[in-house]
Order: sequence, then C-alpha cells, then structure tokens
Amino acid sequence: MNACEFEVLRRRNLERLFHPRSIAVVGASTDASKAGSQALLSLKGFPGRLLAVNPKADEIMGVKCYPSVAALPEGVDLAVLAIPAEHCIAAAEQAAQRGVGGIFIISGGFGETGGAGKVLQDRLAAACRRTGMRLLGPNTSGFINTHAECVASFVPGVDRLRKGSVAVIAQSGGVNLTISFLLDRLDQGVALAAGLGNAVDVTAADLLPILAADPNVSAIALHLEGVPDGRKLYDALRAVTPVKPVVVLAAGRADIGEFAVSHTGNLMGSHQRTVSALAQAGAVIVDSTEDLAQAATLLGQGRLPALRDPGVGLVTGQAGPGLLIVDGLKSAGLRVPELDGATQEVIQQHLPPMTFIKNPVDTGRPGAGFAHVVDAVAAAPEVDVVLVYALSEAAVLDPARALAAAAGRGKPLVFGTLGLQQDLAPALHDLRGAAIPAVLGPERLVLAATALAADARGRWLGTQRAETTVSRSQVPLQGPYDEHKAKALLAEYGVRSPQRTLCHGRAEALAAFQRSAGAVVVKIVADDVPHKTEAGGVHLNIRTPGEMEAALDAIARIPTGDPGKVLVEEMAPAGVELIIGAVRDPSWGVTVVVGLGGVLAEALSDSSVRLAPLADADIDDMLNQLRGRQLLDGFRHLPVCDRTAIVEVVQAVARLMQEHADIAELEINPLRVNAQGALALDALVVLEKDAA
Amino acid sequence: MNACEFEVLRRRNLERLFHPRSIAVVGASTDASKAGSQALLSLKGFPGRLLAVNPKADEIMGVKCYPSVAALPEGVDLAVLAIPAEHCIAAAEQAAQRGVGGIFIISGGFGETGGAGKVLQDRLAAACRRTGMRLLGPNTSGFINTHAECVASFVPGVDRLRKGSVAVIAQSGGVNLTISFLLDRLDQGVALAAGLGNAVDVTAADLLPILAADPNVSAIALHLEGVPDGRKLYDALRAVTPVKPVVVLAAGRADIGEFAVSHTGNLMGSHQRTVSALAQAGAVIVDSTEDLAQAATLLGQGRLPALRDPGVGLVTGQAGPGLLIVDGLKSAGLRVPELDGATQEVIQQHLPPMTFIKNPVDTGRPGAGFAHVVDAVAAAPEVDVVLVYALSEAAVLDPARALAAAAGRGKPLVFGTLGLQQDLAPALHDLRGAAIPAVLGPERLVLAATALAADARGRWLGTQRAETTVSRSQVPLQGPYDEHKAKALLAEYGVRSPQRTLCHGRAEALAAFQRSAGAVVVKIVADDVPHKTEAGGVHLNIRTPGEMEAALDAIARIPTGDPGKVLVEEMAPAGVELIIGAVRDPSWGVTVVVGLGGVLAEALSDSSVRLAPLADADIDDMLNQLRGRQLLDGFRHLPVCDRTAIVEVVQAVARLMQEHADIAELEINPLRVNAQGALALDALVVLEKDAA
Repeated sequence: MNACEFEVLRRRNLERLFHPRSIAVVGASTDASKAGSQALLSLKGFPGRLLAVNPKADEIMGVKCYPSVAALPEGVDLAVLAIPAEHCIAAAEQAAQRGVGGIFIISGGFGETGGAGKVLQDRLAAACRRTGMRLLGPNTSGFINTHAECVASFVPGVDRLRKGSVAVIAQSGGVNLTISFLLDRLDQGVALAAGLGNAVDVTAADLLPILAADPNVSAIALHLEGVPDGRKLYDALRAVTPVKPVVVLAAGRADIGEFAVSHTGNLMGSHQRTVSALAQAGAVIVDSTEDLAQAATLLGQGRLPALRDPGVGLVTGQAGPGLLIVDGLKSAGLRVPELDGATQEVIQQHLPPMTFIKNPVDTGRPGAGFAHVVDAVAAAPEVDVVLVYALSEAAVLDPARALAAAAGRGKPLVFGTLGLQQDLAPALHDLRGAAIPAVLGPERLVLAATALAADARGRWLGTQRAETTVSRSQVPLQGPYDEHKAKALLAEYGVRSPQRTLCHGRAEALAAFQRSAGAVVVKIVADDVPHKTEAGGVHLNIRTPGEMEAALDAIARIPTGDPGKVLVEEMAPAGVELIIGAVRDPSWGVTVVVGLGGVLAEALSDSSVRLAPLADADIDDMLNQLRGRQLLDGFRHLPVCDRTAIVEVVQAVARLMQEHADIAELEINPLRVNAQGALALDALVVLEKDAA
Repeated sequence: MNACEFEVLRRRNLERLFHPRSIAVVGASTDASKAGSQALLSLKGFPGRLLAVNPKADEIMGVKCYPSVAALPEGVDLAVLAIPAEHCIAAAEQAAQRGVGGIFIISGGFGETGGAGKVLQDRLAAACRRTGMRLLGPNTSGFINTHAECVASFVPGVDRLRKGSVAVIAQSGGVNLTISFLLDRLDQGVALAAGLGNAVDVTAADLLPILAADPNVSAIALHLEGVPDGRKLYDALRAVTPVKPVVVLAAGRADIGEFAVSHTGNLMGSHQRTVSALAQAGAVIVDSTEDLAQAATLLGQGRLPALRDPGVGLVTGQAGPGLLIVDGLKSAGLRVPELDGATQEVIQQHLPPMTFIKNPVDTGRPGAGFAHVVDAVAAAPEVDVVLVYALSEAAVLDPARALAAAAGRGKPLVFGTLGLQQDLAPALHDLRGAAIPAVLGPERLVLAATALAADARGRWLGTQRAETTVSRSQVPLQGPYDEHKAKALLAEYGVRSPQRTLCHGRAEALAAFQRSAGAVVVKIVADDVPHKTEAGGVHLNIRTPGEMEAALDAIARIPTGDPGKVLVEEMAPAGVELIIGAVRDPSWGVTVVVGLGGVLAEALSDSSVRLAPLADADIDDMLNQLRGRQLLDGFRHLPVCDRTAIVEVVQAVARLMQEHADIAELEINPLRVNAQGALALDALVVLEKDAA
C-alpha cells in the first residue's frame, strides 16, 4: 500500500469509527458501576450490529459475547475498549488484525500521568500509525452520533440528547457534555458530539473534513486545550470554514499549566498565537461554553456572505435594552451605520414623531407598523445583519408574523426577546417554525452580530490570501548573522535601513563620520555581543569628533573575540517604532509578530500574531488589532505612518522565513516608521543551526 | 417646616410611593390600548384602596372614578398619571395639594425630547422641590412591589413576576423588565423592580436607603445610564453596601451619546469614572443584564466577610470544565491558593492516586468520597469561597446531600452543574431547599466567585477609609499659578520637586547654571505660555555654557506678555513617569486620576480614577489597575518604584483639592518615580476663577 492509499484507508477508518454499522464493547460487564456496563447500556438503541467481548460470559444484556478481541468476527467498524490501560495495547493490536476500523479507549492512565503511561500511549500511537486503524482517546467519555443513533459514551443521560445540526468536538469529555447540554437548553440538538481526550490519533484536524462533508451538520463547535499540531489544524480549518461555520473556545487565557498537563497531557502553548491563528483560518473565537453553544447555534441557522465589515441594523421596541445592545455592538467594534434618508422616510411613516430612527430604530412599544419598520431596515443597502429586540407582549406583537417579510430578504435576522417562560414559549415555537433565529436578552443579540460578523470577516480575509507556491531556496545561508549581514539580507527583500558603513578599525570609523552629513549612530559589530545596547555598544546622536572618539573608546572596552568592527550609520528621522518578528513554531510553522516598540508595549504584550503566508489585509488586521494602534494614525505630535511600507516589511519578513527554511528566527527591532516609509534600525537573523 | 423636617417628609413620601396603601389611576380608561386601562388592570390584585380619575365615568372596572385629581380624597399615597405630558403639570400640582405622597408619570415627551418637553420637566421638578411630593419618572413603565402586591406598571405579564428578594432599580423601564425576566429564568423573583425613566425627582440614590432597610430585600441590581448626581449616588452606595450587596450595570462603554440622550435625556459621562466610583463605593460591576441578574441572585444568597483577596477553592468532577473554571478565575485575577499538605492528605484518602488535588481538586467522576473531599476543601483555612462543578449524574451524585456538610462550614459555597433539564430539576429543587446556590455551566461559577470577591474587596476597602473631616481653607488662593508657584504649593503638602531657581533675566539664569552641580533643565515661566514644551520653552540636559546660551536664546524668542523669567532646575534621576491629576467633577466632586506617562499610555487611556477622600489602599488599588503596572515593579531595566512615595503624592493632591475649594484642576505631569522616591517634574494648578 503506498502512502496515498494508506491515507485513504485512514480516512475511511475514521468514517467507520464515527458512523459505525457494527460495534463491539470490549470489557462488557453486568456490574452497573463499570464503564463496560454503561457503554453497553448507552448503545442499546444502536440500530446496527452490537457485539461484546468478555471471556467469562456468553451474552450480556442480550448481546453475544466473544472471549477476546482476537475472536471477534472480521471487520467490526468500532471497538469500544472499556478495559484498564495496561490491557489496551494487546486489545488494540488484536483489533487492528481483525480489521476493526477504529477503537475508542475510555481509560485514563496514559500520557496524562507521564512515565509508564506515556510509554503505553506511544505504543498505541505507533500501532495506529502502522496499521491505519483509528483511535479516539484514550482518556475520554466518547462520542454521540445522534443521526446514526450511536451513543458511544459511558455517561448516563447522553442517549437522550436530541438530534440536531451542531457538531461538537471537545478536547475534554466533560466539556463535550457541558456544551451538548448547553445546546439542549437552547432547544438545539447535536449532530455529533465527541470528546477527544488525549487525542493520540484522532484530532480536531482529522474530524473537521468529515464534519464539513456531513449533510447533518450545519455548524461546528470546537473546544481546544493544547494544540500540538497547529499547522495541520490551521489548514483543516481554512478548508472547512468557507463551507461551514466553526466556533472555537480555547482554554489557556491564564496560566493553568500544571493542572492542564495533568488533564490530557497537553502543553497549552501561547493562547494569543492559538486564537490568532484559528481566527486567521476563519474560525469565530469565543470565551465561554455558553457563547460557544449560542454562536454555533446561530451560525448554523444562517451566515453572512464573506464581508470585511458588515453593517448592523437594529430595531428595538424598548429604548433601554436597545442602548445596551448598541453599546455592546460598538464596544465589539461592529459598525452600526446611519440609515440613509430614503429608509428613514419610510420608517417615519410608521412611527410617531420624536423617536430615534437613524439606527438603532427605537419604535417604542411595538405597534401596527413594527413589521414595516423591520422590513425597511432589512431592505436598507447599508444593513447586512438585522437585529430586533422586543420584550414579550403577545397582545401587540406576534414576532414570527412581524418579522416574516424582513426575514424573506435573505439577510441574517436575529430576534432578541425576554418574558415569562410561559408567555414566550408560543412565540419561540412559531419563530422556530418560521426558521427565524431567536435569542434571550440583549447581550445575546450582540453575540449574534459579533459571531456573524467575525465569520463573514474571516472568510473575506481568506479570499484575500493568494495561494502562491513558495520557492524554497536550495542554497543554505551562511551564518552567523551580525547586524550588518542581517540588514543586507533584508535589503535583498526590499527592507530599507539607514545609510551605513561597516568600518574595520578606528581610522575607517572616523573617516566614515567625517563623510556623514549629519548626526550618526555608532554600533559595535560582533557576533558574540548580541545585546549591543546593554553592553554599551550603541551610541546615538554623535555630532562632534570628540563625541565620536568617546563612543569608539567605549566600544573598544567591550570584551569580544572579534574586536575593531563598528557600524557608522545615519541617524534615522523621527517616527513611531514597531517590532517585526518571525519564528518557526514547532506546532504552527512560520509565525509572524507585529508589535509596538517601547517598554510599555512590551509590558502589555501589545502585539499581534499571524501565520505565514499572509494577505496584505491580514497585516492591516494585525495593525488594527494593536491596542496602541492610534499611534500609527497621527496621534498627538506623531506622524501618520505609512501603512503600506509596514505591510511591505512584514511581507518581506514572512517571505524570507518561507524561502529560507534554515532561518529559525528573524527580528527587526525597531522598525522606525513615519509618513515617508519604514526603516529597519536594527535586525537579527538566527539560523536553525545557530539556535541553541 | 425647616429643611430637616422637609427631608423627613420627602423620605416618608418616597416610602408611600413604593409601599402605597392607596393608589389613584389618573386617566383610567376602558380602552384596552390605553396605558390607563393597562395600569388599572395590572393593579387588580392590589390589596389596598384603589381609585380612578376620569371626568367621563363614575366607575371603571369596578373602581370608583373621580372627575379630577383635585376631587380625590385627601392623602392618597400614590397617583399613577396615565395622561399626556401636557396635562401632567396641572395634575401634579393638584395631587400635591391633596396630600398625595408620590406620583408616577408614564408618558414621555419631557426632557428626552428637548425644547418644550424640557420646560415641562423643569416645572415638574420644581413642583416636587416645593411641595415634597415625590415623582417617579416621567417616561417609565413604573414599578412592581411584589411583597405589597402592588403592580404599578402598564406592561402586561409583570403581575405574574414571582415574589423574591432581589430589588431591581433600572434607569430604563425596558431594562427593568429585562432584568426581572432574567431573574425569573433563574427561578428568582423580585422584591421591588422600578424603572426610573427620566429620574427627575426619584433617583437610584433615593431608593438605595429604602431598599437597605427593607427586610424583603437581600440584594440590589442597579442599571444606570447617565449619572447626573454622582457624589450623592456614591455616598448612598457607601452607606448601603456594608449592609446589602449592590450589583451595577452601567451603559456607556462605547460612545452611544446621541441615542442615549434621545432615551432619557441623560448625558452618559465618562464610563471609566462611573464604574470606578461605584466600585470604590463597594458595588460589584458587571457588563451584562445576564451577569447582573446572576450575580445579584448569588450575592443575595450569601456574602463573604470584608476581605482584601479571598482564596477560591474548586472541586470538580470533570477535569475539562475544571480547567475552564480555573482559567476564568485566574484571568479575572482571583487567587486559587494551593491547598496545604494536611488538607491534601485528607483529600488523598478519598480519591484514587494520580488525580490533581492541589486546587483545583479533580475528583474524576464523583464517587463515594465526593462529600468528604468538598468538606475538606471547605475546611481549608486558605479557602474562603468553595466552588463545586459536576455534571448531572443522579446515579452517583446527590448534590444537596453531598454538599450539606461543606455548606455548614459558613463559607460561601456555589455548585455549578449542567444536564438535561428533566434530569437536573430534582437536584436543583433539593439544592434550593438546602439553601445551596446553584448555577448552570462553568462560566457562571467564575462569575459567582468574581462577584463574591469583588463584593468582599469593596467592603474591605471601605473599612480602610478613615472618615476624616476636611478643614476647608478659608483663605482664597492667589492665581494664576505658573509652574514655580504650583510646585511651591505642592511642596507645602509634601510633594518634592528637583532643586530649582526662578531667574529673572539672562544673568540670573547663567549664574544659576554656573552654581549647578550637573546638567540642568531650563524652562520658560509665563502664565500665558501653558504648553511650554510645544512652544519650545523646555530645554533638557543642558551641560555647557554654549548650550545654556542657546536655550535662553530660544526661550527669548517665544512671544509672551511677561518675558524674561526662566526656571533653572536640576535634571532629575531616571525613573518611571506617572501622571497624577485631579478635577472637581460637576457630578462626582473631587476626582483623582493616576496614569502612566508616555504617548502609548495616553493612547490606551491607561489610567485609574477614584473619588477623594482616598484610603492608601485605594491608591494601591489604582496602581494595580494600570495595565502597565509591571513598569512600577522593576520591569526590564526599570527601577522598582517607591510605591509609598506615589501614595503620598496622590494623597497630597487629593487633600489640596479638598482643602482648597477654589482649585478647579491640578496636575503633576510627569511625576518621576524610582526606588528613591517621587519628584514632580512639572505641575499645573488651575483655579476655578481662571478656568474658562
């Protein structure tokens, strides 16, 4: 079997695991406290063929028992291993020999415990890599495929989760259930809900293409802890998000390292890098399981087209909640455009004077004209998403009827409401019938618009990224790189630096100073002095021969194995300082960072991260994401910075990293930017072989 | 009647308004579409005396009608005015004459519309101020007092809101109902729920003391738009929060000015100032109606004692949700202390090996020892709040029973769970019976801990503030203040500046330079040059006579009506720069600001605000709230700053503003701080009479 055929086998086995026609429960038991009993119970509604493995019984709960995995008939799709960790290796190897498509291991005691458990886990991984059999877990509560009526999970109650169209993939079994139950509370069922556990073989990246192709799935809710295979996940998401919306909750905003490792054995990695990369791939990022369930439900009911910056229109029957909604929309950076005159005129006909109709439209208590007002807002060309808020008041508003015309205009429309549960129920029922999404409370409307806009924006950014093939340089770079060489390499990619002269010895340096038109900077050049400033090797604003002599004296005192070299460089004009960096991350590949310069920016980590290759629009997005972004746009006495020049430098850095696989790390710090362009004032290139 | 007696009357009338024994509906109607019909319908369950005013009927819905307000019997407690704005003035004046305690005006068309409406509103306000009669509204849907069975509101359905212990005060009638319905969804009723509308007379500050004294109220949920009477609200909150918890949602995070004014006619003011001041007064600040309802419900069920930094203990039956909870707690800055060895030993006896027990305690699927584990955590001295998370699994966990022992330890304990609604219902019912608060989902547990900690911390800060009487200076200050005078004034309050000489003319300046030990700063001193740096009037780091001459030349070229004065000042040692400012805010009184210096800090508005007088602990809190706070604690090459010196400067600024009522504004920019202390490098004092 060649590599391609093997991949096809693995993919088919993955399909068999999650859509099985036959399932064997290994470790089936009559003891209700055992997982092997729960697993069998949960599968009692499974319409396919059910088998059990237990050497001490002929049948359990009416299911035929086989004495061992090796004794199972050929070609069972899924084997659920409800047995202790130490027995799993043998069972897994036997399963592979019997042509089982996939196994799912409930037990913990693997990688998350370190030591011997890690060895067991590595052996499981090796068995999968060798045979093509797939493995869910270990250390997970399993999965539910409602459409296949397959409850491969040992948690009681999950067999009653209703059929729905949101797929859940969670690192943790407990979070998988948490999300599934929250979906249930939103009157939304699940299509597939899987807990990945230690994710030794089957990862989120594997499942995404299957879910993208599954007609029962309209949206995907994804929960992540660590991401050891970032680039694979990124690529999978980029392929899926144009087809189906994906909402992600990534743990690890704070430092929760020790407890996290104890859970599924995964290191958390940088949260900023994770969420930036996933958003770049078109995922919608949220911060809570509640928002995950709500956003996935809404996006599953309808998406915007790919759009950079959709306009939100709001009609509210109560001004106070309307104010909270607009406050939330604007705080989230969403655009609430003023309605044009023609739309306002139409609306005016249906409302009393003195109401606010520019957007939001405050109707006051909904009256007869409410439907017309909502329809007029939905028809407005500047509006891409329509939000409507009205408290339950059956006597004056039948929402399904009032929103029908507007909903027919093909733009996402979400209704927000609240009331006593019994009063709301009929309206919510009718809205479901009319396929109009409804949420409870003002903030959920804000979440709806935020999720719709993020989803649309992510796809728009995706359309901006040209799929160019990078031509890898075949000639290895010759390091190590000092500042002079690093700037020369950057110059080949179009990155400018101030005019400089590399001088060997004092006489050359003094001559270079004499030739210079104005003030200069004098810097030591020595491979073994990486922190030039701290070492006293950088002297700014040298104007007189006396200052030049003093600077050279100071540099001469710095211990180095390669003395005598200095750079004499023109002083750069004033401007704003940025840091542009790139690394080759073991999980995510080439990762580019843009940050503001200065110690406060460093303390705040005011930087933005993306994976290469980048669209120019991605870089613009990075700059807009900086908390201090105002500094680029002419704040106080600062210049309006040349954003095009910044974009070019970032693209050059990304291209350098992609074309030269031997560069481990690259940094321009600072990049001095003003209205005239951008200059690299210092640069660092570290080759893989020089990186310790 | 003297002023004191008049205040007693107003307070008694406010009680009559919200706890009426007799109510007259003015504008009572048989037309179901009219508010006067709805109001009468809503009051049908009112156990007190109900009257109506309608010149065209003798009785409506069985309620006796009077032809006019003037014809009403003496001493009705509450008159509900369901009549157009233009008729309200006459009705209000007649009501006051008939000894009505308070009125409530449904109609809009007052201040929120500007112009004539504003005139009407001012006349209403004047009538209240003259007579002592109280006014709720205008432009509100009214209030519900469930314990008095008084539904003074024109919104159908609110008469079925259940009786509870959370009081709601909302600026907006629509938000009042939104919050009340959210409380209902949490199985929590309301005690009193009032929409203030334009709040011409009755404000939140008026209602707070009444709610503090009401035995039916256990917690207060407050929604604010603008706050025109900030200091009054601050003082009311400071008095209430030691007695009852107050949770606040303040609109206006983003710029929503125009729409906000159209709503209740209030300007929003600075959101940062509002929430900082309310938190300083002990209120718990939230960002959504959902969190408002949830936090008020939880705090009404139990509070922590006043504590600076409570420790949170977490027991979780599922690791994944536990990870999300710890992530949320740490992101919110809460302390999750490691359990001491003795506690861990106790826990270890009840759990299998290899589980994480340091805090959080990850029990795995709850088993027989769960109750003991939770109790051990509750008993741990480092734990002040106990959180427990477990998915619904009736077969293995009866939460009310398992948590009983731990709940008996007198520390707040909150249980978080999720499951199918029908599975959860019995457990939630039992927990309510056992008075153990329960929330749905991991993030709600984080909210619970955050709210409990904020409430405890707010009260702790309150205990740190000594109630000192400020002795107002009787001698007016003589302005205007140039830098030299401003620094001299600050020096009287202990604020240090670098050694300086005020020089008249070039010769004095040169002599001062000659006497100086090191480098100096030369600055213009002229009342009419406020922006010295921008004008070229500040020359740093002058080391040679030539530089000194050049600096004086440059200063001599600046146009001023008062030429020839310069300050020659020692260069200050390096350090971190802060900005310390204070203003006399029309709503909030003396407000102190501490911010980091530099253009990025300015762009980020990285500053912190409090009202004077301040405890030293308040100032410490301000510094900790700065996003760039790391810069004060020895970040990179920066010194560890002398926080005590900063606290002393801020206290001096606050005291100066309080003792000298004629200072409008005061600013030290920058305050240079290092390990040795703090120096004011520049200072500005603006007197009220000089402030344009």
